[in-house]
Amino acid sequence: MDIKVIAFDADDTLFINEPYFEETQEAFCVLMEDYLSHSRLEQELFTNQIANLPLYGYGIKAYILSMIETSIKVSEGTVSMKHITKILDLGKELLQKPIELIEGVEETLAALHGKYKLVVATKGDLKDQQRKLHDSGLGHYFHHIEVMADKEAINYQKLLQRLDIQPQELMMIGNSLKSDVLPVLEVGGYACHVPFHTTWAHERIDHEVSHPNFKALTDIRQVLDLF
Amino acid sequence: MDIKVIAFDADDTLFINEPYFEETQEAFCVLMEDYLSHSRLEQELFTNQIANLPLYGYGIKAYILSMIETSIKVSEGTVSMKHITKILDLGKELLQKPIELIEGVEETLAALHGKYKLVVATKGDLKDQQRKLHDSGLGHYFHHIEVMADKEAINYQKLLQRLDIQPQELMMIGNSLKSDVLPVLEVGGYACHVPFHTTWAHERIDHEVSHPNFKALTDIRQVLDLF
Repeated sequence: MDIKVIAFDADDTLFINEPYFEETQEAFCVLMEDYLSHSRLEQELFTNQIANLPLYGYGIKAYILSMIETSIKVSEGTVSMKHITKILDLGKELLQKPIELIEGVEETLAALHGKYKLVVATKGDLKDQQRKLHDSGLGHYFHHIEVMADKEAINYQKLLQRLDIQPQELMMIGNSLKSDVLPVLEVGGYACHVPFHTTWAHERIDHEVSHPNFKALTDIRQVLDLF
Repeated sequence: MDIKVIAFDADDTLFINEPYFEETQEAFCVLMEDYLSHSRLEQELFTNQIANLPLYGYGIKAYILSMIETSIKVSEGTVSMKHITKILDLGKELLQKPIELIEGVEETLAALHGKYKLVVATKGDLKDQQRKLHDSGLGHYFHHIEVMADKEAINYQKLLQRLDIQPQELMMIGNSLKSDVLPVLEVGGYACHVPFHTTWAHERIDHEVSHPNFKALTDIRQVLDLF
């Protein structure tokens, strides 16, 4: 391996994220439970989010807009303005959640810092991701943050171009096989998977990954054994 | 001058943008005119946008959320769900506006391409800015796009770090003295101002700029005279 840049996913790799979305989704379902069951609401919201992805992209603002749209749709326009206000509030709360580091992250970064160029490679709201990295106190370990519109092979191609490196000089570490591993292997890079206990439905894949450039880990600290 | 990277603002520098926001704002004012005069509505929306900036940042999704919040506020919660749906639609329309290049942009980029590293440096929604650059057909002139959370001196410092260049190796070209010129001069770079016929209130400054690293232009093609 001739790795120059190690890229870390942020949400649920460096700090917890999905549990906060799940909390917000639960609050949304409680708010709207007069109209539909929780499971149907979750399904409607998910369908709406995916339909809006091409226009809105990822991140909390897109999520807020999809919650508002879903609330109007499932209530057939009869939801009250108090509900809309509450959804806006839920979104603002989600944008201000505390940062909780995942175990082992800081010692892993401290050990790699200075030996490799470390970057954050994440999708979502630019503003929100920068806020979270800042609040995490991890900012000084990283050369910079790359906020990506999506994490498909084409986006990693662009990342390699921006970083001016060859594919085999990149290692990506993250909790999503779909976003952090498969497209990186596709463009010729190295990838490590560190699973988190919960994964958004959109990020799940249903097959095993086996590839010479791939390593499945159970703890982020195991990255250090590779170098 | 020892310029290595020429960075171009996107909105109202490469292609028109502010007129689309103004159209949307006008439609919002018509929608809400039963509640408040157009000028008061504009003021309320602007105040709300600025108040939301620290949490939402720039871009269309932030703008949609601020329109929804303003409509609830000025109607004291009595606005109808049809209004909210209409605002969501206005937002989606704004996210799909056609791209209209500003005169002289393409020949300027064509002349500089291959001689300097050209990048786009813009704020706003990541997803939306990438869509616009793609649709503009200008993408191949640029090494990459930098979507910035804000355009203050600190953000340009980070840009220099990401680009791995010295301040005096950067020239920034844009239509906003506040965002594209002053902070770049502050960090030691070069900047050119190419005014657009309309500027968002938040981007206006009320003094003249005079600095050895600064050039006021009237047409983007005049950039070529500097090299």
